[in-house]
Amino acid sequence: MAASPDREGLRARWARALDPELRRARGLSAVNRAVVVLILASVLTAILETEPVLRAAGGRAFVVAEGVFLAAFVVEYLARAWTATVNPRWPSLGAYLRSPVALFDLAVILGVLLPFFGMEASLLRLFRAFRLLRLARLGRFSQAMRLIGAAVSGRGPEIGVSIGFAAGLLLCASTGLYLAEGGVQPEAFGSIPRAMWWAVATLTTVGYGDVVPVTGLGRVLAALTAFTGIAVIAVPTGLIAAAFADAMRAARSHRRGGGEGRDDDGSDRDGG
Amino acid sequence: MAASPDREGLRARWARALDPELRRARGLSAVNRAVVVLILASVLTAILETEPVLRAAGGRAFVVAEGVFLAAFVVEYLARAWTATVNPRWPSLGAYLRSPVALFDLAVILGVLLPFFGMEASLLRLFRAFRLLRLARLGRFSQAMRLIGAAVSGRGPEIGVSIGFAAGLLLCASTGLYLAEGGVQPEAFGSIPRAMWWAVATLTTVGYGDVVPVTGLGRVLAALTAFTGIAVIAVPTGLIAAAFADAMRAARSHRRGGGEGRDDDGSDRDGG
Amino acid sequence: MAASPDREGLRARWARALDPELRRARGLSAVNRAVVVLILASVLTAILETEPVLRAAGGRAFVVAEGVFLAAFVVEYLARAWTATVNPRWPSLGAYLRSPVALFDLAVILGVLLPFFGMEASLLRLFRAFRLLRLARLGRFSQAMRLIGAAVSGRGPEIGVSIGFAAGLLLCASTGLYLAEGGVQPEAFGSIPRAMWWAVATLTTVGYGDVVPVTGLGRVLAALTAFTGIAVIAVPTGLIAAAFADAMRAARSHRRGGGEGRDDDGSDRDGG
Amino acid sequence: MAASPDREGLRARWARALDPELRRARGLSAVNRAVVVLILASVLTAILETEPVLRAAGGRAFVVAEGVFLAAFVVEYLARAWTATVNPRWPSLGAYLRSPVALFDLAVILGVLLPFFGMEASLLRLFRAFRLLRLARLGRFSQAMRLIGAAVSGRGPEIGVSIGFAAGLLLCASTGLYLAEGGVQPEAFGSIPRAMWWAVATLTTVGYGDVVPVTGLGRVLAALTAFTGIAVIAVPTGLIAAAFADAMRAARSHRRGGGEGRDDDGSDRDGG
Repeated sequence: MAASPDREGLRARWARALDPELRRARGLSAVNRAVVVLILASVLTAILETEPVLRAAGGRAFVVAEGVFLAAFVVEYLARAWTATVNPRWPSLGAYLRSPVALFDLAVILGVLLPFFGMEASLLRLFRAFRLLRLARLGRFSQAMRLIGAAVSGRGPEIGVSIGFAAGLLLCASTGLYLAEGGVQPEAFGSIPRAMWWAVATLTTVGYGDVVPVTGLGRVLAALTAFTGIAVIAVPTGLIAAAFADAMRAARSHRRGGGEGRDDDGSDRDGG
Repeated sequence: MAASPDREGLRARWARALDPELRRARGLSAVNRAVVVLILASVLTAILETEPVLRAAGGRAFVVAEGVFLAAFVVEYLARAWTATVNPRWPSLGAYLRSPVALFDLAVILGVLLPFFGMEASLLRLFRAFRLLRLARLGRFSQAMRLIGAAVSGRGPEIGVSIGFAAGLLLCASTGLYLAEGGVQPEAFGSIPRAMWWAVATLTTVGYGDVVPVTGLGRVLAALTAFTGIAVIAVPTGLIAAAFADAMRAARSHRRGGGEGRDDDGSDRDGG
Repeated sequence: MAASPDREGLRARWARALDPELRRARGLSAVNRAVVVLILASVLTAILETEPVLRAAGGRAFVVAEGVFLAAFVVEYLARAWTATVNPRWPSLGAYLRSPVALFDLAVILGVLLPFFGMEASLLRLFRAFRLLRLARLGRFSQAMRLIGAAVSGRGPEIGVSIGFAAGLLLCASTGLYLAEGGVQPEAFGSIPRAMWWAVATLTTVGYGDVVPVTGLGRVLAALTAFTGIAVIAVPTGLIAAAFADAMRAARSHRRGGGEGRDDDGSDRDGG
Repeated sequence: MAASPDREGLRARWARALDPELRRARGLSAVNRAVVVLILASVLTAILETEPVLRAAGGRAFVVAEGVFLAAFVVEYLARAWTATVNPRWPSLGAYLRSPVALFDLAVILGVLLPFFGMEASLLRLFRAFRLLRLARLGRFSQAMRLIGAAVSGRGPEIGVSIGFAAGLLLCASTGLYLAEGGVQPEAFGSIPRAMWWAVATLTTVGYGDVVPVTGLGRVLAALTAFTGIAVIAVPTGLIAAAFADAMRAARSHRRGGGEGRDDDGSDRDGG
């Protein structure tokens, strides 16, 4: 505050620009918006890279893109570490580096290096998919996500009861079809766990049709399952929709309340 | 009360621990929670035991597990009989033993012994599935279940009318496809009951695809069925979701009301 | 009222017992309840009679049952004609016999006689299905049906707009798939009307799977169709559910209002 | 107003009859209702014309119908140009002719002429589908459409968040199945974009069944996807239904408010 006010001010300003928790204005800072775009672009690249046809066509471009994303995420990691010392949320640089947030960032950076070495196909798939974890970093920037999580967990008992209902119905349907069709189609209905695959497809009304009952009794039970399923599935659906509506209302009033009282930054606010 | 106060007190305490109706605190007693876990574990074992692959791999383990569950349920049955004499709900031990609840418990215990004798495959499947009836014992411990049942039956007329609508639409769709496709696909649409299998899959939007209309008229009728089905199905869905919401609200206010007035046990209540 | 008071009173009582519009008490009279059961039984018989397997097994029983139903409906028809002269709704017996209600009853009675003569298979199917029209006679006895019809037509503009939306989306999806897959799968997507069969199955989430896009562009369009479909379908669903809820509320208050004022019959009312 | 009052009055009356924005009464003018019918008829013709079977049967009739529609739309275009000079919305005839509305009308007229020349099959399909763009002209006449658009965009943030959720779930499901089934079914799950086709069909509960998981892990993930999908899909569904309900309410109050104040035309109003 006395020796190098300019540099200290720069660090503090960067800390505010990088950490959404410190930001007093509504919305994300320009820096974090760039990080979000970078994460989305890198995830899109990782998705496309899993497709053999695209990998064969644009192999070099993927390597270059991965290099650019890697460099950008390293720079971001270092910038966050640099500003951690002036961030009141972290007592010391070491505390920040050992925090789950920073360790996750480091793991995601190091994960990129893994698939460059030769390895077995299924492991390679795993490491390719690993890059998609970058997407989880977005959660940090989204207040809505946090409020929705709180609202859904606030309806815990209701959702729990309705999941119990759905599970009971799933078990009844599987047992019924196991009894009705177990002898005729042993491959599809020869045990309750096997019959569950059919029951899930029917209760959720997905209805792949790869496994269907063929006996009269099996079809009557399937019809009952399909109709009851609609009713039972409706309940958690309604509860989650209501929880979401509550969360959005809470988010709106929170934003309004938060934006009015403490507005000393005001750089890029968009209205009241 | 005079001769052996300690033993009488022990029995009364066990009676309260075993019978949820006698319990004055919120939630289940530790003993009943253990019973619930035991039931769930035994049902899971019974489900897995129906799968031939698992039965071949862990045959011995299943026999041991079934023995443990059997012993535990026998002990529970005897404990309930022992405490029935001090339970005000039962005038005598004989009255308890002849009650539907106790007879169901006995049947479930004896049912375990059945599949150990050699028998025909379809009977064996039936007796394996029989063990899942243990799950029905859980209903006794769940206040929510009882309240939901009451709420749904309170909306009886509405649900009845909407089921009538759905049945009428099912009949119209089956008849239409029977007329349109009965000559072209006699196996699938050669009678109204046969066409109903297709109509159920379409009205519930499950859509297995094992049976589909191929003529122009059949497809137009199928399209009308699919669109109308969405509307008709929506009605019971909304009614049941509303009944469930009412039941949860009733359960909450009931818990609150019940917890305030008579709180002389208070062993493991969780807040007000 | 003067000459033969007993017989006149009998006729008037039968008129009230047969015509739900004249009945002042809530619910159906015992006679009409018997007619409803008769209609349901005859429709169930007609449904089962379309199944060749059952027809082969119980041919004689079906003939006997049809004869009994025919006799019963003839008796009912004559009884309604006999009471029409004392029914204030009909100026004369001729007016009743020429009314749409009586003509429909006569047509349904005569329709039963048709399939007894030899005829072509598709015509035979049509006449078998014709018997199901008896079910439409139930509408007359159901006040709920009339109130629901009124409520749905009261939301006409909203439902009209949402059907227009659904139709527009159906057209967009069909056109898109016609363009994307018309060259690759001419049988399934070679024209817009053909592509509509796929579009209906996708928009309603029935998803038979007999016709699916195989090109990349076709699949992207199909994904958009499936997601948009959920949103567009939600709208009429919600509107109809709301209309139904309104209708049930109206029916309840109507029953209450109607039961209080004019209660001079009071034979089998069930409470206030 | 002075020189040729009759002709000026005729033009002004035609301008009001042709432009819904100038019309002060509720509903469409008789002229615009005819235009709407014409557009619907021409689109229906264009749809049927894509079907090779119908084109072979009624080739001449389609040419005649297209000629009639072309002539009618040319007359309409000229009438709109003629009245543009007295329409206060357009400063000059040139301004009208260069407006997006008039250019779109011209493009749709000229588009009809294109497929008459010999060209490649896929281009021909495109030009056939081009005629359906006439349908977009209807949007101009529909106030409801505009109000709904406004209502949906007013719920932008909520819908955006719920689309983000759905996208995240889609990505999780695709990645899971890519890892679980990528090795077993490389054609269907060999990359994340490929697995997305399955994930869309499952999350939307369409369930074509052309691609289904076969491994145990794949089926467990598919079951989780199907159940979670129902919950996530419920949210935008509810939001859009609520937005639609708001829009319809707004439309109704707007119509009522607009009809009361400025009612100097009053030619074909239909009540208050």
